[in-house]
Amino acid sequence: MQEELLQKVVEEVKKRMNSGGDNPKPEASSSKTSSVTEFVGTAIGKSIGLVIANIDSALAEKMGIDKKYRSIGIFGGRTGAGPQIMAADEAVKATNTEIISVELPRDTEGGAGHGSLIIFGAEDVSDARRAVEVALKELERTFGDVYANDAGHLEFQYTARASYAIEKAFNAPVGKAFGLIVGAPAVIGVVMSDTAVKTANVELIGYASPSNGTSFSNEVIIMISGDSGAVRQAVTAARDVGKKLLAALGEEPKSLTKPYI
Amino acid sequence: MQEELLQKVVEEVKKRMNSGGDNPKPEASSSKTSSVTEFVGTAIGKSIGLVIANIDSALAEKMGIDKKYRSIGIFGGRTGAGPQIMAADEAVKATNTEIISVELPRDTEGGAGHGSLIIFGAEDVSDARRAVEVALKELERTFGDVYANDAGHLEFQYTARASYAIEKAFNAPVGKAFGLIVGAPAVIGVVMSDTAVKTANVELIGYASPSNGTSFSNEVIIMISGDSGAVRQAVTAARDVGKKLLAALGEEPKSLTKPYI
Amino acid sequence: MQEELLQKVVEEVKKRMNSGGDNPKPEASSSKTSSVTEFVGTAIGKSIGLVIANIDSALAEKMGIDKKYRSIGIFGGRTGAGPQIMAADEAVKATNTEIISVELPRDTEGGAGHGSLIIFGAEDVSDARRAVEVALKELERTFGDVYANDAGHLEFQYTARASYAIEKAFNAPVGKAFGLIVGAPAVIGVVMSDTAVKTANVELIGYASPSNGTSFSNEVIIMISGDSGAVRQAVTAARDVGKKLLAALGEEPKSLTKPYI
Repeated sequence: MQEELLQKVVEEVKKRMNSGGDNPKPEASSSKTSSVTEFVGTAIGKSIGLVIANIDSALAEKMGIDKKYRSIGIFGGRTGAGPQIMAADEAVKATNTEIISVELPRDTEGGAGHGSLIIFGAEDVSDARRAVEVALKELERTFGDVYANDAGHLEFQYTARASYAIEKAFNAPVGKAFGLIVGAPAVIGVVMSDTAVKTANVELIGYASPSNGTSFSNEVIIMISGDSGAVRQAVTAARDVGKKLLAALGEEPKSLTKPYI
Repeated sequence: MQEELLQKVVEEVKKRMNSGGDNPKPEASSSKTSSVTEFVGTAIGKSIGLVIANIDSALAEKMGIDKKYRSIGIFGGRTGAGPQIMAADEAVKATNTEIISVELPRDTEGGAGHGSLIIFGAEDVSDARRAVEVALKELERTFGDVYANDAGHLEFQYTARASYAIEKAFNAPVGKAFGLIVGAPAVIGVVMSDTAVKTANVELIGYASPSNGTSFSNEVIIMISGDSGAVRQAVTAARDVGKKLLAALGEEPKSLTKPYI
Repeated sequence: MQEELLQKVVEEVKKRMNSGGDNPKPEASSSKTSSVTEFVGTAIGKSIGLVIANIDSALAEKMGIDKKYRSIGIFGGRTGAGPQIMAADEAVKATNTEIISVELPRDTEGGAGHGSLIIFGAEDVSDARRAVEVALKELERTFGDVYANDAGHLEFQYTARASYAIEKAFNAPVGKAFGLIVGAPAVIGVVMSDTAVKTANVELIGYASPSNGTSFSNEVIIMISGDSGAVRQAVTAARDVGKKLLAALGEEPKSLTKPYI
């Protein structure tokens, strides 16, 4: 009886707390606001969006920001790089902004992957703010095909038409369908990659691994391009095998929001 | 009633445990000692200080340590780089030692920042030991303007007169006032940086971001120099805005010890 | 009474959960299997082993895999690099495979060290599978001299005869005795290194630290070679001092499985 009660308490505590450093723990976008002028909003993955209307010129120079951008939007989070890059891609499509830089810290709050720091440039602060708003809003969707358990995570992204954030981050051709496949631990990513490129006739535009192309994350990542049907097919085939493999190391990996691909 | 009890248990468990990999969790300096000759002491941030009276010459060569240093002091921790560098700076001011190297692992025990490995060189082991003792003792103060919550951390450092550890780590001019501003997640650091340099007439001597100047930490860091009043003013202005922004992602960020700036 | 009960609950919850991001948390090899053809098995350290019978040629090219290897074995985990490299070394001794690459992500599930991604090449998939099986099985042993507590970890490895995985990863001479000494936080590794090379007449073939030779892990690592008795003596002397030093920062560090050296 006491054991049963204890078990119940442990289960409940587990549910209510983060279970500790080894998987992404994004939370729903909070409705918190801030009195700071630069604040735009927060979202899943401990993501936050900010703007600077007139960036200090000495700082802009150190950051490598061209003088033509008076205003910048700043967007990123502790957990996730792919979701934020895909969200930023929608933001540049929808607004009069450009992607200045995409940086990938080694983060995910103790997990196996990356966080993100993305900077939009604009001539007007209202454009920068709009881009950040769009990106924050998109995150709910772009975290949909991120699957995690205690042992690692998988990420899948797909778009029928890549824009400038994807080009900047992944060197992918603008205007074509693009797919991203991420497996952590890295071992799983290798097999997912092989499955993807064998499934459909896609172009393998990039391969990143712990010591080459990542920030030493425990991930293998491929970027694919090509016909939209083929890209989608490659991504979903990799997703099928990846979910089974990650499940062998822990619980059934679950979508962090709602699958979109 | 049962729900209420459960809630109480969960709250209590949360309080007593670390909540999981996403913020610095320094603990008070322990009073533990060690029978090992090389042991000097431990302090906050899972920091430890050791000395070697006569470093092995083959090891010294591999470590790039000049032959003139017979003795070395070794100082650093799991959580924190800025606090340890500032503490080491006081140590070199107070002792007959030099800073041989400052290295920044990507750590903070699952958090967004760095740990540290700092090596002092001395001709005599008593000097090396004294430097490590001073540095360990200073940590209580230099962690004072580190603020953390579940989402990230902020760090502020200030000295009216920088010495050789600060020069080594940040390329800052010796003898002048120095300020350090760190924001994690990195997004927050960008706005803090802009606020700081706009607030007072300071020289921006460095800017570090996830892929440039950090060890892929999820931080944006600036180093400033100049008139002591201006440096302090820039630092405190950044602190005000940083604390508000980090609060938008989680709980009110709290000082890890006691603010000193 | 209520306090006592609460304390008991907290202790129990602590025991049942991971305590959060700051030490390796390997679990016993699970008996889970997977329906995926490529699956071989899982083991301690959230390690997994997979094979690809006929690697896609475009992927092989991006991965830098020579065409002569039709089949690859893929092996690694979230926690541990040394244990997996030593296990892979036994696997190449026992099978008709070669080591294609060894990569060290910055991982250990929020801890201070590395994870691993090791790729075996073979002409035949049965050889690749056999290598992965051997490596998975060896992990139980090679995690034996990994000691961890809340503050960090220590790792010791020893073999009387190094083979090609050790050569690939550590540039150590094949056929000679080899020893590996790892301390985290890095400070502790420095003193262990000094103790090791002073204890016995060994050749110091490598020194790695947070910014040089690691993936920014909070570790100092040395690799030693020489007469088998001397190497073993150096390793065990470092182990004695390391365990005492790490104990000063937390609880008594414990072997993750069963010491073998």
